[in-house]
Amino acid sequence: MNLNEYIELINKKLDEFMPENDFPQDIFKSMKYTVTLPGKRLRPIMCMESCRIFGGNIEDAIPTACAIEMLHAQTLIHDDLPCMDNDDFRRGKPTNHKVFGEANAVLAGDALISFAPQIILKHSKNLGTEKLVKIMEEYMQYAGAYGVIGGQVADIEAEKNWKNNIFGLQPEELLEFIHTHKTADLFRLPLRAGAIIAGASDKEIEKISELAQKLGVAFQISDDILDVISTFEEMGKTIGKDSNADKLTYVTLYGLDTSKCKLACLLDECCDIIKSFNIKSESLLEIISGIKKRVGINDSLTR
Amino acid sequence: MNLNEYIELINKKLDEFMPENDFPQDIFKSMKYTVTLPGKRLRPIMCMESCRIFGGNIEDAIPTACAIEMLHAQTLIHDDLPCMDNDDFRRGKPTNHKVFGEANAVLAGDALISFAPQIILKHSKNLGTEKLVKIMEEYMQYAGAYGVIGGQVADIEAEKNWKNNIFGLQPEELLEFIHTHKTADLFRLPLRAGAIIAGASDKEIEKISELAQKLGVAFQISDDILDVISTFEEMGKTIGKDSNADKLTYVTLYGLDTSKCKLACLLDECCDIIKSFNIKSESLLEIISGIKKRVGINDSLTR
Repeated sequence: MNLNEYIELINKKLDEFMPENDFPQDIFKSMKYTVTLPGKRLRPIMCMESCRIFGGNIEDAIPTACAIEMLHAQTLIHDDLPCMDNDDFRRGKPTNHKVFGEANAVLAGDALISFAPQIILKHSKNLGTEKLVKIMEEYMQYAGAYGVIGGQVADIEAEKNWKNNIFGLQPEELLEFIHTHKTADLFRLPLRAGAIIAGASDKEIEKISELAQKLGVAFQISDDILDVISTFEEMGKTIGKDSNADKLTYVTLYGLDTSKCKLACLLDECCDIIKSFNIKSESLLEIISGIKKRVGINDSLTR
Repeated sequence: MNLNEYIELINKKLDEFMPENDFPQDIFKSMKYTVTLPGKRLRPIMCMESCRIFGGNIEDAIPTACAIEMLHAQTLIHDDLPCMDNDDFRRGKPTNHKVFGEANAVLAGDALISFAPQIILKHSKNLGTEKLVKIMEEYMQYAGAYGVIGGQVADIEAEKNWKNNIFGLQPEELLEFIHTHKTADLFRLPLRAGAIIAGASDKEIEKISELAQKLGVAFQISDDILDVISTFEEMGKTIGKDSNADKLTYVTLYGLDTSKCKLACLLDECCDIIKSFNIKSESLLEIISGIKKRVGINDSLTR
């Protein structure tokens, strides 16, 4: 499947998995609103492609893939809250709390954290209980304080204090921590889960984790770059907030040129890993080309 | 074990299970703060007692019991937020957002939702994957939009609108829905999970669910009564908010006397169920006596 076919399938499944008329409707409508906003669906695609790379059936990965997109939506809902980033727009539409109110947005996010694994448990019984337990372990690890939430906490703290070596970390180390957890962990989860569904070996799972780390950091650098060079129309959210706020980002720390070079380098390493698997993934390569194109990396910067 | 011995054991285990120096410390400290506030520990006691009633080893239920207390703490942290009930005190101490700020409180709650099952998965491997999957299913059901969050959404909505038959429900039906989900579901989860750990039959699990429903509604009625007749010192939180706000509660709907009668009646039914099990639970009976004493139900109201 190419990326567009994947996106179409994932959107259809997300629509099926998200009820809108269950009681009380307010919460289910609010959950569904953000989950089904148009998006690139990178994380579910990664989950299904990782499953395919290691010889699994992508059908088996659909519930987990969609669940991880729900978790991603949860992080967006809560990150946008007035007490966090206070954003009014996401993916070109009003943010969840703007539409449903702040209390509902908090609760919709809360509900998605447990709804997503419920979808996995309900629709993946054919995987057997051993794989299900492994997937639950991965989900809880990367969804929580050791994963994406730890990254978000450090990010919020860094916004105010990064020049003061908070947490005893140098700014470079702090930025690495934030990118690893806030972004790469939500790539690690689908790539590892897809591999587990396919029955990959521990060594294979480690290798796909390495890809997740590089791709996650690359993606975050590209986001930091786009925040400087892009427009609201292109991004669908308020732009320039990070640089305006003198926030800790790759660009504020290393400058635009070095950031682009680092990004190009990481993306090349990702390509090498992807090409090393027995089964090739055109879709993952396409994702990497897409990142290059968005930030305007031309071939002179890459091999 | 009597209630005090249970509380001591649970407090010790909660302290062990909750790290405070993991990175980033802010989030782990914030999570631990609310989880370890002194409390009655009703839900973990229920989990361990249910396990014992059905012939299980209470040691096996400790991680799940503690995890459910963590989930309970999560609901308290988010319910107290400015955008929800906006409470400054909980269990006699400043609420989580008062101590750690609103963003951290939202994230600490989020993190507890996935940290709690992580504790179960990590410390209950001896149960085997089949039981673990069942416990995960129960947890996700009652933690989410079909459980305690559904109850909270309806409760918030009811605060403003209950006289207008919101959701197409009569006030009596709406109140029943709120009590069932906001309170009874967090009794159902530990009682059912304890039974599952012990390997109870489906019929036994149904029976303990019935106890959960009655005890949950009874507990909520007692809370509604106490909100009218109690003081801040006794409750450790702001008192009289519900009746002042003309909120939908058992007392505003049926009056104080009818509420007390209904409560006495439910508690008697709970005692009957508890006494019908082969293994008796003095602890659960003690919890019921405690509720009676708190609201001043004397023997003339009960059999």
